[in-house]
Amino acid sequence: MSSNVIICGAGLCGTLLALRLAERGHRITLLEKREDPRKGALVAGRSINLALSDRGLAALDLIGLKKRALDISIPMLGRMIHSIDGSITRLLPYSGRPDEFIQSISRHGLNALLLDAAGEHANIDIQFGISIQHADVRHARVAGLKMGTTEKIDLSGDILIGTDGAGSDVRQGFMQIGSNIRFNYRQDWLDHGYKELEIPAGPGGTWSIEKNALHIWPRHSFMVIALPNLDGSFTVTLFLAFDGQPGFNQLNQKEEVLDFFQTQFPELVQLMPNLVDDFMLHPTGALGTVKCSPWHTDQTLLMGDAAHAVVPFYGQGMNCAMEDVRILDQCLDLHNENWSEAFNTYQLLRKKNTDAIADLAVENYTEMRDHVDNPNFIAKRQIEMQLEKNYPDYASKYNLVTFCEDIGYADAKERGHAQDDWLLDYCAKNDTRNLTAADLDKIYSELM
Amino acid sequence: MSSNVIICGAGLCGTLLALRLAERGHRITLLEKREDPRKGALVAGRSINLALSDRGLAALDLIGLKKRALDISIPMLGRMIHSIDGSITRLLPYSGRPDEFIQSISRHGLNALLLDAAGEHANIDIQFGISIQHADVRHARVAGLKMGTTEKIDLSGDILIGTDGAGSDVRQGFMQIGSNIRFNYRQDWLDHGYKELEIPAGPGGTWSIEKNALHIWPRHSFMVIALPNLDGSFTVTLFLAFDGQPGFNQLNQKEEVLDFFQTQFPELVQLMPNLVDDFMLHPTGALGTVKCSPWHTDQTLLMGDAAHAVVPFYGQGMNCAMEDVRILDQCLDLHNENWSEAFNTYQLLRKKNTDAIADLAVENYTEMRDHVDNPNFIAKRQIEMQLEKNYPDYASKYNLVTFCEDIGYADAKERGHAQDDWLLDYCAKNDTRNLTAADLDKIYSELM
Repeated sequence: MSSNVIICGAGLCGTLLALRLAERGHRITLLEKREDPRKGALVAGRSINLALSDRGLAALDLIGLKKRALDISIPMLGRMIHSIDGSITRLLPYSGRPDEFIQSISRHGLNALLLDAAGEHANIDIQFGISIQHADVRHARVAGLKMGTTEKIDLSGDILIGTDGAGSDVRQGFMQIGSNIRFNYRQDWLDHGYKELEIPAGPGGTWSIEKNALHIWPRHSFMVIALPNLDGSFTVTLFLAFDGQPGFNQLNQKEEVLDFFQTQFPELVQLMPNLVDDFMLHPTGALGTVKCSPWHTDQTLLMGDAAHAVVPFYGQGMNCAMEDVRILDQCLDLHNENWSEAFNTYQLLRKKNTDAIADLAVENYTEMRDHVDNPNFIAKRQIEMQLEKNYPDYASKYNLVTFCEDIGYADAKERGHAQDDWLLDYCAKNDTRNLTAADLDKIYSELM
Repeated sequence: MSSNVIICGAGLCGTLLALRLAERGHRITLLEKREDPRKGALVAGRSINLALSDRGLAALDLIGLKKRALDISIPMLGRMIHSIDGSITRLLPYSGRPDEFIQSISRHGLNALLLDAAGEHANIDIQFGISIQHADVRHARVAGLKMGTTEKIDLSGDILIGTDGAGSDVRQGFMQIGSNIRFNYRQDWLDHGYKELEIPAGPGGTWSIEKNALHIWPRHSFMVIALPNLDGSFTVTLFLAFDGQPGFNQLNQKEEVLDFFQTQFPELVQLMPNLVDDFMLHPTGALGTVKCSPWHTDQTLLMGDAAHAVVPFYGQGMNCAMEDVRILDQCLDLHNENWSEAFNTYQLLRKKNTDAIADLAVENYTEMRDHVDNPNFIAKRQIEMQLEKNYPDYASKYNLVTFCEDIGYADAKERGHAQDDWLLDYCAKNDTRNLTAADLDKIYSELM
């Protein structure tokens, strides 16, 4: 029962999907709008590193690439919080258990790893530089153009899958038959945008600040984060209101940019010699959430960001998109390669979970920029770490989302919120500095 | 300060807007995709009559056409509820005050009235059969095609306003610059669709059922409604789940249609000799809500269904779209014809109200099909009528929405919900059959 499958979008989700479906015996045509990213220069200012965690790793494990992905990753053991005057730097571990942490990985490096594997697979034909003009989602057909030419492409398969990201062209095919398929769709943008900057490598490729952490400079209504790269540099991102005080609208002149960083992030001015030039050169990006339904017809499916783009604040966009492949794989098992039935079950299982991570990601922006240096929040995290250390079956909200790939995002959200509410209330009412084993037992039994 | 204004969409909102802006001294180019509706045959199965009420009338009054609209309308004093066996027919008046009722009007007739007026205005140039291919919402430019030809149209003005309905082409211009303008957008479809049918006129152009009412055959999970036309016919609409028991999916054969109506609406089988043929011939329509934001750039604005399409169950879609014109008119007064400032204030004032009517319209579907024959609901309506009769400043939720054009939909929703909750609770706990003047006084003082 081998099918001809057209996959639009050779990013992380699409290439992983191509590999897995090829292993299942299907013949894959993998189309990508960009030229081969392994050949070109990186585009400055686009998200260039990501936090890989257990859901993404479980999906990579499906195709035997987990170890090779870890080989190009840098462990981040927790959030390193930087105060405004640089006097306090505090590591908040991601878990109370030593084997639970996340990985900084280059989007480009991981994509190249996947594309190399796909290029070697006999069942996969990759075509770069193909722009989709029209997707016929009722009949698994796409019409497009070879980029930079007038050469027309017209392909039809048994199955069409759109993994072409938040601005999906395949999704346009669903929008266009809107009143017929009754395609529910929403896109919501944050009032905050982002700007990507860089802390260059120190002498001899060393890391100028702690290598094994995700650094945060929380400033309540805005923040900077930094993730380590293999070459000693850090990718730095400023998240800030488009229009505000402060806001990107007030940072138009070099002097304004320098003044803002000197006031709010003096430590970073020292670490980033190209700060002002990078700031002026790099685009200001917008952050949006996409939700839609249905994701499928009998022959076409949307996956990854094309179906459910999220804001980046839970570090789950890529992990969720790769987990999509693992869940679809299970659905194909369940329905003996009957695509239409598998798509139906896939959406039933998956939609509530991608809705949940979308909401969690928006919530987490407030947590990262505003709560991580709040005493109650820190007290809560300390109790959670003690619980995780002493009770193997306890997991905080962050832990459930990040390290528990057998628990769906929706359940993680529900349990996590209940735990957070109880613990924040407890921390507000009790002195939590010297908890005894009996205190912890009592908290544990309340929470579980 | 006369501006060149391009208005896309010569439906009820766009033509009324053209007339009002022309009266303000602007020069209007009014573009319409369809051919002149005054020349062609009506399209069967599209919504062909509407409930005109005070918000729409207030907007028509702006351009002096209120009386002429009323001349082609039929008053509907209340909802006439038809039970399944035809034994009970009960009129639930829309208000306890005799001068508060709604009007059945033909969409085509009202549009023709407006187009005739626009055609006579020296400041308005109407062009039919123009399909918009691209709207440049930053610069008030549209590119299009003369329908049925390859003749290209390229127009630019000082201001561009999209009144081109729920499937707006101008709105596409906002979608296309999505990450730049950060255009929030959502479309949500109901699981129920509709089919338009007809009760033909009786002998000599008489009405076969009560003329001055909006008829409802409520059947809990579905319903039929009928609105009177001037020629003695009624426009009949079945609202039913697409997939359900019953559902449109089960009504594919003529025998199935007849059997369904004979079981559920025997009275209508008698009244509609062409029932089965009409059912098979007419399309099944979908019902959707569109919400978006921002509605404007400095030079372009979305109005009416293009900005906020609603489902039809509050009879407010047209009234709301025409009220848009009245509110924009006030904003142009306020800002001395400064369009950009007027657009900004318009959205600030208007968005919460159009969001509210969208939500009220979805809620009202449940009320119309399921609650209107519920004893508690009927008891509540009877108290509300007594309150409206005896206390000139009392208004039910329906009354606030329909007859109080000085109160925004958002306030109407909030007050209306609070009143409904209190009254339904009261009716559940008390025998309301013989309320005294003192009882009413007490209820009134609780509610106000």
